[in-house]
Amino acid sequence: MDPLPGATSRVRVTRLPGREVESDRLAVEEPLELRVNGEPVAVTMRTPGDDEELALGFLHGEGLIDSARPAGPTAELEANIVEVTGPLLRAPGERSFYTTSSCGVCGKGALEEVAVHADRVPAGPEIARATLAALPDRLRQPTFERTGGLHATGLFDAGGELLLVREDVGRHNAMDKVIGRALRDGLVPLHDHVLCVSGRLSFELVQKAAVAGVPILVGVGAPSSLAVRLADDRNMTLAGFARRGRVNVYTGAERVT
Amino acid sequence: MDPLPGATSRVRVTRLPGREVESDRLAVEEPLELRVNGEPVAVTMRTPGDDEELALGFLHGEGLIDSARPAGPTAELEANIVEVTGPLLRAPGERSFYTTSSCGVCGKGALEEVAVHADRVPAGPEIARATLAALPDRLRQPTFERTGGLHATGLFDAGGELLLVREDVGRHNAMDKVIGRALRDGLVPLHDHVLCVSGRLSFELVQKAAVAGVPILVGVGAPSSLAVRLADDRNMTLAGFARRGRVNVYTGAERVT
Repeated sequence: MDPLPGATSRVRVTRLPGREVESDRLAVEEPLELRVNGEPVAVTMRTPGDDEELALGFLHGEGLIDSARPAGPTAELEANIVEVTGPLLRAPGERSFYTTSSCGVCGKGALEEVAVHADRVPAGPEIARATLAALPDRLRQPTFERTGGLHATGLFDAGGELLLVREDVGRHNAMDKVIGRALRDGLVPLHDHVLCVSGRLSFELVQKAAVAGVPILVGVGAPSSLAVRLADDRNMTLAGFARRGRVNVYTGAERVT
Repeated sequence: MDPLPGATSRVRVTRLPGREVESDRLAVEEPLELRVNGEPVAVTMRTPGDDEELALGFLHGEGLIDSARPAGPTAELEANIVEVTGPLLRAPGERSFYTTSSCGVCGKGALEEVAVHADRVPAGPEIARATLAALPDRLRQPTFERTGGLHATGLFDAGGELLLVREDVGRHNAMDKVIGRALRDGLVPLHDHVLCVSGRLSFELVQKAAVAGVPILVGVGAPSSLAVRLADDRNMTLAGFARRGRVNVYTGAERVT
């Protein structure tokens, strides 16, 4: 059984040096247009699946909604469009967002506007060091294992139990899908939870987690300088290089016991 | 000597389990606003350095310029702004990615509607399999080695000689910087060259390479489904998983000898 239907597709590949021609599975990447109340707002390159949650998580990370909204396909079902309806917290702005699977280019026009408003995260919870360092191993990535092409984000409780995991060619999308699902489940703000990502920790990922109220964010890879500054400013615990029982804590070390 | 001044910064890190508090180097990530003839066009999160070339490469990948333009900092020097002047091939915002009107990303083929126009790449050159598979090892990443946080793109000739390498927290930026430099050097279209990237191969990276006329693109990681479709459509050689003498060729295998 395919754990993520539609997430992979088959292509022919020539493997060198042997020159065997075989069928190989790749991660699917397709554009998704997001509309809000009939108006196109953004296009993102994503792996199909959980599109409604991707849309909700994206809008939440942009500060446009603070709870779930109705979301679903438009009448143009095969058209890679998802439509969200209901009131927004503010206008999306004159410029449409521009997102891609990784670059973070967007329509925001000034330095000060790069950061979406997010409150400082309250103190707590605590997490054991060994638990924190082991979270990447618990991020089961069945599709990644077959394609090598997907990023993952997992939602955990502070005891290290995996509640939810999503995979996508775009790491921002994987986190949007998780936060969108949490919105639908009424879990946001995620003040008692931990997010773990399979890759590096960019400013944009810290931003999305901060807006969702996540106190602890950990990654397998390195954070950037601005990711650390933002996490510090928002009172978050930011940890990287979580591998084989070791982990580097850049901010909020008091939550790690 | 720092090979890429301004690309790293120091932060305090708590290393667990030992709880040593040390100084650590991280890759710098800061926003850059791109203006064209005074108008803000995009903001990207990037690693400072080669900002003018990043701007030129970005505009080229969007189909907005086909040769170099004057580019430099604005009077607001510390403001992370780069300004490009001169005529554009079309108005920015006409790409379906950006437009908010009737995005045809939808009903028809996603490929035709999302892709920036690029001619099919002509036949040739050929590259030896062992050379192709070894390119990632020649992508020296001095900054990555110290921070673990940077993507790289390298420009090679078909004999495997490294001509240019750029690193950035954003993989799209690394490629934009290389192509922007090539534009300034009058090398575009890059019909005799090879691009090698340190990570996965997304649609957007194939797109940028196609617009620059690059016949051969190879990565350390996996391609996505749409990356393969676009490379095939543009007559490019797309190869992935280049490691330890092995490489998978997804399209254009006739260029690999």
